[in-house]
Amino acid sequence: MAFSERVSRLKSSLIREILAAAQRPEVMSFAGGLPAEAMLPQVEWADMPRTLGQYGMSEGEPALREALAAEARGLGIPCDASQVLIVSGSQQTLDFAAKLYIDQGTEVLLEAPTYLAALQTFQLFGAECITVPLASDGPDLIALRQRLEQHNPAFAYLIPTFQNPSGVRYSEARRDAVAALLDEFGVTLIEDEPYRELNFDGGAATPIVCRLKKASWIYTGTVSKTLMPGLRVGYLISTPDLFPHLLRLKQAADLHTNRIGQWQALQWLGTERYRQHLLELRAFYRGRRDAFETALEENFSELAQWNCPQGGLFFWLTLKQPLDTRTLLKQALEQNVAFMPGEPFFADPEANPGYLRLNFSHIDPQRLDEGLQRLAAVIRQAQIAQAA
Amino acid sequence: MAFSERVSRLKSSLIREILAAAQRPEVMSFAGGLPAEAMLPQVEWADMPRTLGQYGMSEGEPALREALAAEARGLGIPCDASQVLIVSGSQQTLDFAAKLYIDQGTEVLLEAPTYLAALQTFQLFGAECITVPLASDGPDLIALRQRLEQHNPAFAYLIPTFQNPSGVRYSEARRDAVAALLDEFGVTLIEDEPYRELNFDGGAATPIVCRLKKASWIYTGTVSKTLMPGLRVGYLISTPDLFPHLLRLKQAADLHTNRIGQWQALQWLGTERYRQHLLELRAFYRGRRDAFETALEENFSELAQWNCPQGGLFFWLTLKQPLDTRTLLKQALEQNVAFMPGEPFFADPEANPGYLRLNFSHIDPQRLDEGLQRLAAVIRQAQIAQAA
Repeated sequence: MAFSERVSRLKSSLIREILAAAQRPEVMSFAGGLPAEAMLPQVEWADMPRTLGQYGMSEGEPALREALAAEARGLGIPCDASQVLIVSGSQQTLDFAAKLYIDQGTEVLLEAPTYLAALQTFQLFGAECITVPLASDGPDLIALRQRLEQHNPAFAYLIPTFQNPSGVRYSEARRDAVAALLDEFGVTLIEDEPYRELNFDGGAATPIVCRLKKASWIYTGTVSKTLMPGLRVGYLISTPDLFPHLLRLKQAADLHTNRIGQWQALQWLGTERYRQHLLELRAFYRGRRDAFETALEENFSELAQWNCPQGGLFFWLTLKQPLDTRTLLKQALEQNVAFMPGEPFFADPEANPGYLRLNFSHIDPQRLDEGLQRLAAVIRQAQIAQAA
Repeated sequence: MAFSERVSRLKSSLIREILAAAQRPEVMSFAGGLPAEAMLPQVEWADMPRTLGQYGMSEGEPALREALAAEARGLGIPCDASQVLIVSGSQQTLDFAAKLYIDQGTEVLLEAPTYLAALQTFQLFGAECITVPLASDGPDLIALRQRLEQHNPAFAYLIPTFQNPSGVRYSEARRDAVAALLDEFGVTLIEDEPYRELNFDGGAATPIVCRLKKASWIYTGTVSKTLMPGLRVGYLISTPDLFPHLLRLKQAADLHTNRIGQWQALQWLGTERYRQHLLELRAFYRGRRDAFETALEENFSELAQWNCPQGGLFFWLTLKQPLDTRTLLKQALEQNVAFMPGEPFFADPEANPGYLRLNFSHIDPQRLDEGLQRLAAVIRQAQIAQAA
């Protein structure tokens, strides 16, 4: 059996295994990033044209590309529909970025922590991950300049708005500074924004790609967090120099994105009905976020520190007494509680013990307090055992 | 701009460019592999559960996996649902096969000719393509043994039933012999069967994977040719040794296949309604195939030779006076006729001039004769110019 060299880096996915365990109905899960089932919209299919059963264009449905380009221009992104590629969920953008840029040993620049599945995909292709620590308003700029001076990353992958896992939203000033540095060093930006619309406390910041003057960029988004992840409809928008390559990678990967989901997404984008749905979604998640904050204060104030996230789906906890949180999983699941250990969100997990990512959107509010109580007890017990 | 080494092998897709040109309504297209629009079934969506909007499992929907495993067992493939992975169209299986096996310079074994998009995907990852010529009843067995003795391919990729582009269906004896050789040399088989159900003249042959005793295998199929390609729902079935790796590659590629399409596919598989639809589809395409054969005899009997395909979607023509058929495209499109040149279906295009792939399923029967007449005229003119 001779697999590719790449397969040796194909890690067992902790997320997938935790999510599988969290499927048991008795488990109180803080693990996934799932939208609340109650907020999945009622959708209609009756008017869908039968011709959508036919093969479609690799670029995606023309009307959907137009709608997404219009929305992006509304955010300040200079683009037209010819720069929009519809993808099978924004995870696919990460696959294409890896294919486009990464050979064995290619350096890429990431936040620490960063999105676990991005890290896994880039490492699968053999990337050398250079990381920049995140503060509460964005990356450490001194460290960023230093990394750019000392390394030659093929791209920087950033999640500047309600980052998964940390919840960080870059300030305006950090966005400007990051754009200026990427322009100065000529480094391509991949800006991932699945959570932009899940904004609970107002405030806004234009994407970093709007601020670039020279560097190439890929901006990627999805309807998974606002409409329905089951559709698997995401999109990327790129500078024209990258687009033809990305389009060919799309064709080689799966020919085109399913047209049924593209049609449904188009029924919502830019409509009054969608604006209304987003308002309801924000209010619903804001309520869950607030209840979670209260329950956390009750159960975790002695154990951990955190910032209250202004958007997205996660609280990111820093334990006051660090330990490898992966070792807590077994006991937590025995107590019917699931959570995401923080270590796998770092390129160097061993050097970053003591973080937990807790999802607040999915759990039944009736069981929230009980779940956090049990999780806190598991942590306390482990800390006692560690001290002993 | 530093792209990966791989990008230098990312070819402009001739297919995509021809299909784009063939979109013009005035073009008579023999180019694509599109199902006839008239045969897209009327589908219902009203009963689809709203919960399918949520994220799903990377493996695919459990009920669909069960249904596909049952169907595969009916063909003689020893498997259960745990070996079935739902993919975003069977093109995605090729992407996974490339990721699982191919490093720069890895040898893979292919038919000559073979499916263009498979060739492109494997070459994108850096494969060294070893090829075996196809006769009318399967691969040349002496050549196959020789290749296996002289090379060390990571896998053999074969399309034994109504191959694209050649239309060849391997005989029972060739299937047995191929299985025995792959077992003898311990080479993994990837068996691609999108056209199995498009069988016009009866006869059947069990898949080659059923005949393997030792070698690992991946069997891949789709609902694109029988139901609706726009759903982007395909599947693979693999031996248990490969499955965990393929599952992780699926998760890294796009998390999971869209659930809307999976649900629709499940409404059809194994039902009386689907059996009826397949009967109608076969009758419809048989009629188109027969009309095409008649029109070909009228227009091409002096120019080319061909075997009447017993299934699938294509005639494969061998010009009696070979020339590089890629050079005919421009003139053909000026005459509003599109076709697929044969050269790109070979790992060594320059050494294989003089073939054309003509799709018979999509063209309007009213325009069939006119289209073939014009194409024949373009060829004749080029041959005269060549001789001069």
